[in-house]
Amino acid sequence: MFSLTVCDHIMIAHSFQGEEFGPAQRMHGATYAVEAEFRAPKLDRLNLLRRILDTVDYRNLDEMPQFQGQNTTTEYMAFHIWGLLAAALKDGVLGEGGRAVSGLKVLLREAPGAWAAYEGAIY
Amino acid sequence: MFSLTVCDHIMIAHSFQGEEFGPAQRMHGATYAVEAEFRAPKLDRLNLLRRILDTVDYRNLDEMPQFQGQNTTTEYMAFHIWGLLAAALKDGVLGEGGRAVSGLKVLLREAPGAWAAYEGAIY
Amino acid sequence: MFSLTVCDHIMIAHSFQGEEFGPAQRMHGATYAVEAEFRAPKLDRLNLLRRILDTVDYRNLDEMPQFQGQNTTTEYMAFHIWGLLAAALKDGVLGEGGRAVSGLKVLLREAPGAWAAYEGAIY
Amino acid sequence: MFSLTVCDHIMIAHSFQGEEFGPAQRMHGATYAVEAEFRAPKLDRLNLLRRILDTVDYRNLDEMPQFQGQNTTTEYMAFHIWGLLAAALKDGVLGEGGRAVSGLKVLLREAPGAWAAYEGAIY
Amino acid sequence: MFSLTVCDHIMIAHSFQGEEFGPAQRMHGATYAVEAEFRAPKLDRLNLLRRILDTVDYRNLDEMPQFQGQNTTTEYMAFHIWGLLAAALKDGVLGEGGRAVSGLKVLLREAPGAWAAYEGAIY
Amino acid sequence: MFSLTVCDHIMIAHSFQGEEFGPAQRMHGATYAVEAEFRAPKLDRLNLLRRILDTVDYRNLDEMPQFQGQNTTTEYMAFHIWGLLAAALKDGVLGEGGRAVSGLKVLLREAPGAWAAYEGAIY
Repeated sequence: MFSLTVCDHIMIAHSFQGEEFGPAQRMHGATYAVEAEFRAPKLDRLNLLRRILDTVDYRNLDEMPQFQGQNTTTEYMAFHIWGLLAAALKDGVLGEGGRAVSGLKVLLREAPGAWAAYEGAIY
Repeated sequence: MFSLTVCDHIMIAHSFQGEEFGPAQRMHGATYAVEAEFRAPKLDRLNLLRRILDTVDYRNLDEMPQFQGQNTTTEYMAFHIWGLLAAALKDGVLGEGGRAVSGLKVLLREAPGAWAAYEGAIY
Repeated sequence: MFSLTVCDHIMIAHSFQGEEFGPAQRMHGATYAVEAEFRAPKLDRLNLLRRILDTVDYRNLDEMPQFQGQNTTTEYMAFHIWGLLAAALKDGVLGEGGRAVSGLKVLLREAPGAWAAYEGAIY
Repeated sequence: MFSLTVCDHIMIAHSFQGEEFGPAQRMHGATYAVEAEFRAPKLDRLNLLRRILDTVDYRNLDEMPQFQGQNTTTEYMAFHIWGLLAAALKDGVLGEGGRAVSGLKVLLREAPGAWAAYEGAIY
Repeated sequence: MFSLTVCDHIMIAHSFQGEEFGPAQRMHGATYAVEAEFRAPKLDRLNLLRRILDTVDYRNLDEMPQFQGQNTTTEYMAFHIWGLLAAALKDGVLGEGGRAVSGLKVLLREAPGAWAAYEGAIY
Repeated sequence: MFSLTVCDHIMIAHSFQGEEFGPAQRMHGATYAVEAEFRAPKLDRLNLLRRILDTVDYRNLDEMPQFQGQNTTTEYMAFHIWGLLAAALKDGVLGEGGRAVSGLKVLLREAPGAWAAYEGAIY
């Protein structure tokens, strides 16, 4: 099984609901270093990821309709970006190469010693 | 000359004024990985930095009085944290060891391939 | 599948038995940068790992009863810490969130270019 | 399951065939930081990898017979090195320990934010 | 003193003259991760570096007229890129901000554990 | 000014005297990732550092005569290795190239977020 990983990053603002989040209930932000691992032999390496990250980059996630009532934790954002990438692959955005992708993992590093990921098969 | 570097990080929200900032004029955020390099032989390694970072960690910098009319760019925030650390050293917060510090550099990594720093002598 | 990774580190002394270990038969030590990857949606991110690492941090492993007759190689220590974390998860130390964890991987970096890991399912 | 990862690097020259490769059709080169992950309890950690990398290190891959008609992309080179390591393990080069290896992953970092890997079971 | 560092990378082919270079006398290549540290308050962060790196990226340095009779070692390439950046700064390519730059350091990482740099004042 | 940095690492055991060291008063250890930055145009890149590190690698520093009565902190070990490298440079161990070295910095990373260095001119 081949895998190909491309990296990029986004810088967002958000706040969390719930006492267990402590000071993270305040409006704050994060640089998320994003690693997208595609499990398939050949792919356009960079353009797809950048296009999808542009939909959330330099945004206050609290004000975006799609995130209402949702804590945009690191693991949730990994899942959200995974969903956008998986949909693009199924839509044939990457051509035949993209349709050959069988698995996808999206990992977001929020700080030097903490990260979260979501991975799943692509049908 | 000895130097001792300690690292920590903060997660903040902010926005920039000025067309040259493009999408960064929108409310967004950053994880700043902070490296503070003290030039002196012996120091309390971690507690001072954490206490100072707490004043800006998990904050929307746009709403803090001390940053009004100021773009809180990475280089400005390096300078701001440098100023707080330098003042603490002069105030004797770190005891004799702290008073022996002759130089200080504060470096903030905002993303895997971009960082800024401020350095200067401590009198 | 979600995964959440937290990092910390320990600094230990030890020595190995067996000629194949060469100079590592002498009392020496290591900084182990520990990465614990939990496969589950929500967890207390830091406190559990730190509490478990405290049982071996700043220790001479050669003098600890539980390691007698055992070479405390990097891979063995990954397995040892894995066992402590897995037991804590089963004991409900992390509450409902912890009981939802289905997989765990513990990775120890002993040097910039060498690391070992142990991973397994949690029942 | 245990895993043990060793790292090393090679520096090669090559060029790619096909308009989709753009400027990479010109003779250029790469430092590939190689990570070999062995899934097994005990192994000679470094010597095997170095010996295998020597067959391609400091070479112009375009002039090597085994790569004629093949674009030596990062993912292909990961697969190539995987094949050499897998064959050595089966040949018993690492003794009983090597024969116990059940899985192998070879990952090549070609730049700070881009890497590829090949992984598979060893029978 | 402020400093601002931007990073990018190039992938080149070359060979060295001189027995002391051993296997590096053969045509080989390198990924050079480039870090350019500008000592000044405000700058166009990315575009200048990319434009200058394009002049050597994806090239066989042995065939470029400006490198004839010169071993393009890591330290030499750091000096070469430093010269191009310094000239662009003096030519006013970056406007007033660029003319305020008083120092410049260019660092090239050729492998995980080896790098070289050239630094100097800008008049 | 050129600089050339080479990296290697050592794994040692030691303990500290003084209540302010807390649990580090117990026998423990460290992996020190060592970075030696030579300020000069051309040098034998690797062999000198390795030879010097061998004098402390895989050792219990508490039992070595040269460290009696001395806390072998990270900053002290940086100074110690600096002294050995500086003496070797003056003794002409690196030939004419070594005698041209005018500055030297030795940096030891003891953990992902903590390091210390010693730097000074070579006469």
